[in-house]
Amino acid sequence: MARKIIIDTDPGQDDAVAILLALASPAEIEVLGITAVAGNVPLSLTAKNARIVCELAGHPEVKVFAGCDRPMGRPLVTAEHVHGETGLNGPKLPDPTMPLQPGHGVDFIIETLRSEPPGTVTLCPLGPLTNIAQAFVQAPDIVERVQEIVLMGGAYFEVGNITPAAEFNIYVDPQAADIVFKSGVPLVVMSLDVTHQALVTRARNDAFRAIGTPVGIAVAQMTDFFERFDKEKYGSDGAPLHDPCVTAYLIRPDLFTGRHINVEIETTSELTMGMTVADWWGVTDRPANAMFMGTIDADGFFALLAERLARL
Amino acid sequence: MARKIIIDTDPGQDDAVAILLALASPAEIEVLGITAVAGNVPLSLTAKNARIVCELAGHPEVKVFAGCDRPMGRPLVTAEHVHGETGLNGPKLPDPTMPLQPGHGVDFIIETLRSEPPGTVTLCPLGPLTNIAQAFVQAPDIVERVQEIVLMGGAYFEVGNITPAAEFNIYVDPQAADIVFKSGVPLVVMSLDVTHQALVTRARNDAFRAIGTPVGIAVAQMTDFFERFDKEKYGSDGAPLHDPCVTAYLIRPDLFTGRHINVEIETTSELTMGMTVADWWGVTDRPANAMFMGTIDADGFFALLAERLARL
Amino acid sequence: MARKIIIDTDPGQDDAVAILLALASPAEIEVLGITAVAGNVPLSLTAKNARIVCELAGHPEVKVFAGCDRPMGRPLVTAEHVHGETGLNGPKLPDPTMPLQPGHGVDFIIETLRSEPPGTVTLCPLGPLTNIAQAFVQAPDIVERVQEIVLMGGAYFEVGNITPAAEFNIYVDPQAADIVFKSGVPLVVMSLDVTHQALVTRARNDAFRAIGTPVGIAVAQMTDFFERFDKEKYGSDGAPLHDPCVTAYLIRPDLFTGRHINVEIETTSELTMGMTVADWWGVTDRPANAMFMGTIDADGFFALLAERLARL
Amino acid sequence: MARKIIIDTDPGQDDAVAILLALASPAEIEVLGITAVAGNVPLSLTAKNARIVCELAGHPEVKVFAGCDRPMGRPLVTAEHVHGETGLNGPKLPDPTMPLQPGHGVDFIIETLRSEPPGTVTLCPLGPLTNIAQAFVQAPDIVERVQEIVLMGGAYFEVGNITPAAEFNIYVDPQAADIVFKSGVPLVVMSLDVTHQALVTRARNDAFRAIGTPVGIAVAQMTDFFERFDKEKYGSDGAPLHDPCVTAYLIRPDLFTGRHINVEIETTSELTMGMTVADWWGVTDRPANAMFMGTIDADGFFALLAERLARL
Repeated sequence: MARKIIIDTDPGQDDAVAILLALASPAEIEVLGITAVAGNVPLSLTAKNARIVCELAGHPEVKVFAGCDRPMGRPLVTAEHVHGETGLNGPKLPDPTMPLQPGHGVDFIIETLRSEPPGTVTLCPLGPLTNIAQAFVQAPDIVERVQEIVLMGGAYFEVGNITPAAEFNIYVDPQAADIVFKSGVPLVVMSLDVTHQALVTRARNDAFRAIGTPVGIAVAQMTDFFERFDKEKYGSDGAPLHDPCVTAYLIRPDLFTGRHINVEIETTSELTMGMTVADWWGVTDRPANAMFMGTIDADGFFALLAERLARL
Repeated sequence: MARKIIIDTDPGQDDAVAILLALASPAEIEVLGITAVAGNVPLSLTAKNARIVCELAGHPEVKVFAGCDRPMGRPLVTAEHVHGETGLNGPKLPDPTMPLQPGHGVDFIIETLRSEPPGTVTLCPLGPLTNIAQAFVQAPDIVERVQEIVLMGGAYFEVGNITPAAEFNIYVDPQAADIVFKSGVPLVVMSLDVTHQALVTRARNDAFRAIGTPVGIAVAQMTDFFERFDKEKYGSDGAPLHDPCVTAYLIRPDLFTGRHINVEIETTSELTMGMTVADWWGVTDRPANAMFMGTIDADGFFALLAERLARL
Repeated sequence: MARKIIIDTDPGQDDAVAILLALASPAEIEVLGITAVAGNVPLSLTAKNARIVCELAGHPEVKVFAGCDRPMGRPLVTAEHVHGETGLNGPKLPDPTMPLQPGHGVDFIIETLRSEPPGTVTLCPLGPLTNIAQAFVQAPDIVERVQEIVLMGGAYFEVGNITPAAEFNIYVDPQAADIVFKSGVPLVVMSLDVTHQALVTRARNDAFRAIGTPVGIAVAQMTDFFERFDKEKYGSDGAPLHDPCVTAYLIRPDLFTGRHINVEIETTSELTMGMTVADWWGVTDRPANAMFMGTIDADGFFALLAERLARL
Repeated sequence: MARKIIIDTDPGQDDAVAILLALASPAEIEVLGITAVAGNVPLSLTAKNARIVCELAGHPEVKVFAGCDRPMGRPLVTAEHVHGETGLNGPKLPDPTMPLQPGHGVDFIIETLRSEPPGTVTLCPLGPLTNIAQAFVQAPDIVERVQEIVLMGGAYFEVGNITPAAEFNIYVDPQAADIVFKSGVPLVVMSLDVTHQALVTRARNDAFRAIGTPVGIAVAQMTDFFERFDKEKYGSDGAPLHDPCVTAYLIRPDLFTGRHINVEIETTSELTMGMTVADWWGVTDRPANAMFMGTIDADGFFALLAERLARL
């Protein structure tokens, strides 16, 4: 039976691929809706981009909601230097014709969790955790109804990307992350430790392009654009494909290994703000609250991606 | 024309008096609704107490909503040691028969601010600022539609009551307070500096009782109960009547004097968490964001209270 | 028998009066030495001013040492806006002819505490606590040999002067203050709560001048200069005479009342950095570590000052 | 010409090897003195162990001083779980007969830097930075006289060992580390990123033992003991030999590569306290203050060690 999910996202090229992978996998994943949040680019763009991606996937029926347009307690930081000024730079994709749903993304999350049977809905945050945390604060009854949160965010050995100590998604809204990490909901964390192993090499990019469909070509163009930043910064073979790790996990959890450990969020020091302090080595007695992933079978992951994207 | 307000409250005996004063003053104040929040006692009690007070006032038609049941990012701290286990200890008041409104208090705040003309609704928070901050994060478009926020919270020269550095309302949800104080909405702050001048002496308590109505007697019994704590702690003549300063200000702003200064909220250090750092002496160049009150004409204030409460 | 003290100081007009009072009171106070520290003005000036004051008092034999020229972990902040560019603006006083002692002030503190019988030496810090804390870190064996520390610093109800939350002496070196307040040495704290009651009114200034001696006239001129700042800022009758409260306490402890309470130093938050969080109302269960003074008999204090300064 | 150094140390088996390497290399290194500090074990033991090591090396003439017995502003944390209760568990070594020098280690550092020509003395801290920071605060004139500080401490990609975010030496006294990292002295940092590449495998341990001298056998026994902890924790082939990287660098800097970057010390948040926030990827515009090493030629390093230790 397909797993019911809400994708909470700030597309972003890698968010786009994560969404495409989910929509290409109806046997395993049922997308109840997509909630946009401010992050990589402002909310007006992420809410638009989410619909562009749904239409690219041939799924204009997916419900897309706009959520929060800024973090809970800090000014918004965006990442146009990585994703381009639209967030989806790379391919030329038409403006969406499907409408944004009325109502707020946070309300959709609350209502969905209340209307679906307890323990049957998984949240998949691909951006800052503002929408999720807002929903949890406003409607604490939904917290125990969440089946699992599988999220992209944080880093331990890879430490940080937006600052020396913090990964972008967590850094943008550390207070929201703190609420989510302390919520008690089972967490699966795809951090930079994992996603930096999922590099789009030339061959992998070619494999996307070779699909020959509009989706395949668009994905190749998106990862082409995306990799410019990481290649220059890290001197690596290609760009990490962060967010699709989340939806890949729902289909093939065996591609990943990790440790069930304590992870806390730094919220007080500006120097280390947003760090995901992961007790990988078990040096504290703080209780485990997250499955923190450490490895990915990158070949298996890209094979899955190519196979599934070809279905759209 | 009466000023339209939403009272956001965690009753609390002094909250009760503040509500009674508002409901007794229809020429000056139109209560659009009351949103309950967790604070002095848990939400289930504050949502109940708000309705008890409306019925005591003879106004069962007032819309009362339940809001957030805990702070944004910290565990809830309550104050039964001050207010008693019900929050309204003192008088014997019947359970309310009026219903809670359906829907969430935060949504009521958002919808009201969107439906009323811009700049015509004043928010009157008497407890932790959770509901207000949640509404501002979720619906930032409403922020500039608020006419003013007149709140009870904080302290400067009186420093703190729940900790040596912090006043209760702000301490309970410093993140929410930080959001509100940085929102740009005009703020009027009734801090302990003012409210500790509004002491219910024996004579003032007698004046309430002398009204002879159920309202007058209940208020006398509430302040009787309430003062036990402060008399013992501070050795003062009576208990400070904090929250009615907010609604009194709407009727008689001339009873108060203050300074338009910068006030920032401490959110990072556990030692000083929730302090309202008020630049009373102008030693920083931080911009003014709040009218921080410093004095109250206590005799005028209690005369107003006695006169108005007698009308109910 | 006279009480043996080391004065640790950053003169400063009020430091000067504190030193003069000590040197004028040999029956009660034996000044073992004076250690200068950076604070109101840089070390080169405080080391010079300390000697100017000794010579003004007719005591060129007093040992004056230079100590630390900056705080332990932060850049030095000075207060020329209060004290003038020399730190002793007001009277015209000749440059000192007495030499600075060789050796470091911190070493003098350590060696004195080791050579004098345990429990017989009181430290009297009138500025930032850098020298004292350095000595305690380097030579922890001396800590239990200190009889008492009587210091000027901090504030609770008066909150702050250099920032809205912090008094100057503590703010300049909060790490040093934290070390001293946690040292376990009995502390007597003359905070702004006390010193703001010790105002040099016109009549009191006239009384100094009426002494007619060089000391009396210089003190009148110093307080004349000093008061310009406070009169303008606070609109008060005169300037508070902070530091002499320390030496007055050694002569007439009965002039002061206070509470034996817990006082902690804020060292982590920039907003409240250096605040002396005093549990005046006993709302925490943190153990008492300081006699935190709350009142001074100002008339008695100024009578003492006038009487003693006339002896020099 | 041999480089003049002061070794500041808290032996510790790996400190011992670092000292032995220095004493075995008189052509490159002249040890002006050794200052002990509290760290791995209390000061009384580190001051004793330093002398045990000097005598093992056949150099009882080395001046060994006791320094600070606790950090600047926090309680001492030690690491007997790693090093054993003596700090030098493993070999049986006789108690030292050489005396401790009179005077404080901090004073020795100050006096040496003042008496040697400017820019000719390198400080080699192998433990918490308390002694160095105390000297810098007390005698700021010596800061610009230091040639270089080559230290073992911190971590970036290896993140932490004593906590999830911090390496032991920095964690024990983060305030001292902050002072040193902000001092302006050229810094070379041997962090866990490097030292975790310097593993004492079975073969490398055998090579020490095969030297056949008391020194060789003792080093083999020390690393035997030391590796128990790391093997169990990390599942690695052997224990990292942290501190000898410092003295090896003085002899063979070509064994190391790194980046000249900004490194800041976390001093405010308990969660991340003592983290060395290294801007390895250049994502901030903070100025470079340290050569932060990233790789070591481990074979070359162990070959150097075996060759030099055989000389003793």
